[in-house]
This record gives sequence, structure tokens and C-alpha cells, in this order.
Amino acid sequence: MKTSLECISCFVRQATEAASFCVPEESRRTEILRIILEEIARSDWNCTSPKMGQLIHRLIRRETSVVDPYADMKRSMNQLALELLPSLRQEARLADDPRATMVRLAIAGNLLDAGAKSGLTMESCRSTISRMCRGECLQGGADRLFDSAAKARRILYLADNAGEIVFDRALIELLPMEKLTVAVRGFPVINDATLEDALVAGLPTLVSVLSNGSDAPGTLLEDCSSEFRQLFEQSDMVISKGQGNYESLSETDKHIFYLLQVKCDCVARHLGVSVGATALCEKTGADQRVQSCALT
Amino acid sequence: MKTSLECISCFVRQATEAASFCVPEESRRTEILRIILEEIARSDWNCTSPKMGQLIHRLIRRETSVVDPYADMKRSMNQLALELLPSLRQEARLADDPRATMVRLAIAGNLLDAGAKSGLTMESCRSTISRMCRGECLQGGADRLFDSAAKARRILYLADNAGEIVFDRALIELLPMEKLTVAVRGFPVINDATLEDALVAGLPTLVSVLSNGSDAPGTLLEDCSSEFRQLFEQSDMVISKGQGNYESLSETDKHIFYLLQVKCDCVARHLGVSVGATALCEKTGADQRVQSCALT
Repeated sequence: MKTSLECISCFVRQATEAASFCVPEESRRTEILRIILEEIARSDWNCTSPKMGQLIHRLIRRETSVVDPYADMKRSMNQLALELLPSLRQEARLADDPRATMVRLAIAGNLLDAGAKSGLTMESCRSTISRMCRGECLQGGADRLFDSAAKARRILYLADNAGEIVFDRALIELLPMEKLTVAVRGFPVINDATLEDALVAGLPTLVSVLSNGSDAPGTLLEDCSSEFRQLFEQSDMVISKGQGNYESLSETDKHIFYLLQVKCDCVARHLGVSVGATALCEKTGADQRVQSCALT
Repeated sequence: MKTSLECISCFVRQATEAASFCVPEESRRTEILRIILEEIARSDWNCTSPKMGQLIHRLIRRETSVVDPYADMKRSMNQLALELLPSLRQEARLADDPRATMVRLAIAGNLLDAGAKSGLTMESCRSTISRMCRGECLQGGADRLFDSAAKARRILYLADNAGEIVFDRALIELLPMEKLTVAVRGFPVINDATLEDALVAGLPTLVSVLSNGSDAPGTLLEDCSSEFRQLFEQSDMVISKGQGNYESLSETDKHIFYLLQVKCDCVARHLGVSVGATALCEKTGADQRVQSCALT
């Protein structure tokens, strides 16, 4: 899915926020933002949005000399998710359809995304996630996801954000874990989950966890390690979380279940749903089945 | 009120939207956006946000050769407001406090603002405005506004957007019209109201209407006509609509009632209220009384 012109202002917003996290002097933040505007103006926009995001956040790291501007935010998000998980998991277990509820919970976790929105507050996340889990939808898609998982030989689960990955764990526990690998980003970018976050979520004791070797806020196959690419190739089912993974993989032929909160017009148009939708999209090549509901 | 770094991405978003309204070819829109990014990177940010907005929208007009990219949107907004006005005005007249209700209606009209938000839809404006008028708040501020108006020798009413100006008319009808002048922008910029919109709202038959002679999306005194500046000087009460006028005049000593929807973090912080607030701020120099409520 190609970067749209509408994405450009979003990159500028992300860069402004990232600099505000790690550069106290306004004059230096101003300089950095000017540099980034110039670099965006000169760069090739004929690529996916995660490819552009990779460029922007590399620039941010280069100019700020800070490896992970979102480190504090990621810690808070993991903390919040760990606090919320026990009661939400309990609620899901007692629900009429625990499996669909757990799928919704995993998608609700995708609200913890600093890429799509600035000024994310923990309180708003808490109340929205809790409300979303009590909805009733995506049952058909959840059934298909679990049926596919039962039949699959190898499942690759592409994590998205810190915090969110804690909720992923609750869904992963219901899947056939012996044949499932969770992939995380190779390096910090925005608030995307890395090995450290997988560890906080307690995943390595349950399933294989693999770094994809890339610093893109998505899954750019050509940029990932050969080990990751091989696993991607060998997996006959992929579960992909979030917009970044969708934007980078939407043109592949693989059998992929995309679980995401739809946060911008571009992705909404591409999926044929509304901004704000909680979406489950099963895709194999050109064949696409989208189920969505508005829970927020 | 100085341009904040957070404003920059908002200018980029505005430029993208303005180009989408009047340039059908994506390749040309891409070129224009690159030019604007470069010009923003090079420009002086040590000014108010409306001054920056003036620069951006001059660039848009220069690059697209279109004098008024928002012409269609302004027509739709005027149309919508003219449709909604009779029933809302009737509702306001029957309300417990018709004057405070009319003040809320005038502020609700400020939601019709393409500068603060892309993809404004008529339907969402319709339902929100109608809901807002039924609220109960700003009574104290509205009383002070009408008391001041009764005592004032000369009142200057600074309009903001097309559509909104139709709702302004309903409030203006309750004010001492013989001593009131409505000022509009001198040239089209974003969806700000010009003489044409004042005419559509039927204002010239009721009160004096004056163009401020400027193409800024706010009131940059140094950029306005001498006639406007003289009137501003002579007026002992100003009613100022919207963020753009607030951002450009917030440092003046004048006695000003600001009526606005608070649409971004920067203005919210400056006023000490939340984003989304419906705000009435009475200000004389450093003395500021803000009354606000969340109706949306």
C-alpha cells in the first residue's frame, strides 16, 4: 500500500512528537524539524508508508542522538497493559464467546499506537479498551482465525506495539502455541514492540520469539533478516497486527489475518471501512474478507 | 500567540487538503507539497500561526493558480447553515435563556472550520451544532457580553468562517446593531468568510460590514487596511470569533470577547481549557476570564 500524500503531514506530526520526547531545547527541536521537512521534501514517496516511517525515524535518531525516544512511553504502555490484563482476561473467559472476545481484546490493544495519534493518554486507552472488549462482533472472523490456526502447519504472529503485545499474549495462549512464532521489530521505532517488550509480556516462556531484524514500523520483507524471511516463507498462516504491518504486506499473496484498529483515512479507504473501525481482514492474494465494527 | 512546533504538521495537512480540492493530477499535487515543505522549512516560524497560515495559503494559490480552493466548501457551509438556522433560532428563542443559547449557537458555528480539521462533513456538523445548542452553559459570560454591548460606544465583530457567519447573524440580531460593524477577511483564505459570505448571511442589510483588507486566516493588524485598523482602534468592545482571530490578537490590550471552539492543544493550553471545549474568553490586556464547557 503506497504512501499517500495525506501521510506526509502525519510523518511531520510524528517527528515533532518524537523530538519533543527527547530534546528539551525548543531551538534544537526547531532545527531538527526544519531538517526533517527538507529531507521529506527531497525523499522518494513512491514506497509504502512504513518505508517512509523508517526514513523519518532514522532521521530523528540521527539528529537527536537518542536511540529510543519512545522508551518511557513503551514502559508506561506495557505497565498499563499488564495492569489491565488480569481483569480483562477474566472477563473474556466468562464471556459467551471467549475466543471472539480475546480477538477483540487483541485488536483493542492496537489502540496503544503512538504512530497514528499524538498525545495518547493512558486513561483514555484504559476506558476504551475495556469498553471494546464488552462489544459483540467479529465472531465469524474469529472462528475462521481459530479454524485456520488448527489446520496450519506453521503460524507467524507479527506483533505491533508495546503494551499491545501484552494483550496479544492472551490471544496467543488460545492458539496452538507449539507451531507459533511471534515476530517483533529488530530495533526501536516509534512505540513498536521489540524483544524487550516481548519479554515483559512473558512471551518467550510460551512461544518462539524472533526479531525481524528491521527498524521499520511495519514488515518490509526486503529489509528483514534472512531468518525472518525464511520463516515468513515457510508459514502457511500469518496473523498481522496493526496498520504498519498491513500497509507493508497488503500486496503479498500470503494467507494473512490482519487484526487492527483503523486509524486513518488511507487505511480505511484501502480496507473499505470507516476510520475508528475495529477490523479483522482475512486476505489471500486478491481475495479479501473484511469484518469490522465500530466499538470506540 | 506564537506558532508552536505542533502547528507545522497542521500547515502541511492544510496544504495537502487545499491542493486536493483544486489539483486533479496526483503528480502535480506531489510537486506542490514538496515545494511547500521546502518553503516551510526555510520560513521564519517566529510569528503567529495566522501569519504562517497566510504564507502557506499564498503558496498554495501561487502554485495551483486557483484563487479560492475552498470556494465549493464555503458554498456548502453557507447552504448548510442557512438550512439549519431557522429551526435552531426558533429553538433558541424558546429556550430558558435565549441570549446564552444564541451565544452557544454562534460558537457552535465555529465548528465549520476547515483549517483545524480535514475531511469536515456536513452531516457531522449538523448533528454536533444541533446538540451543542441544547446544552446549558456560558450563561455568566453571555450576560457579561450583552452588558458590555449595551454600554459600548462602538462594537467590532470579527467574523471567522463561511457558514459560521450565518449563525453569527442570529447573535448579531440580539446585539445593538446600530453601533456594530462586522469585519470579514479581505481575500479568500481557507474557508474564512469574505464579503461574499457576509452577503449570503444577509448581514449588510442589518449592520455595517467591512473587509479587513488582509488575506491572513486571522486578524494581523499590521496587515489590515488603515480603515480597519482605525475602526479597531475606535471600538471599545470587540467580539472575536474562532481560533485564528484569537491566535493573532491574544497579546493586544483591547477589551475582547473571544467566542471559539477549541480545536488544538496549542490554543487549549494558552486558554487553560481542554481540546473540544466551547469557550467564551473575556480579555482585557493580561486580565482574562475564561468560561468553557464540553458540549461536543
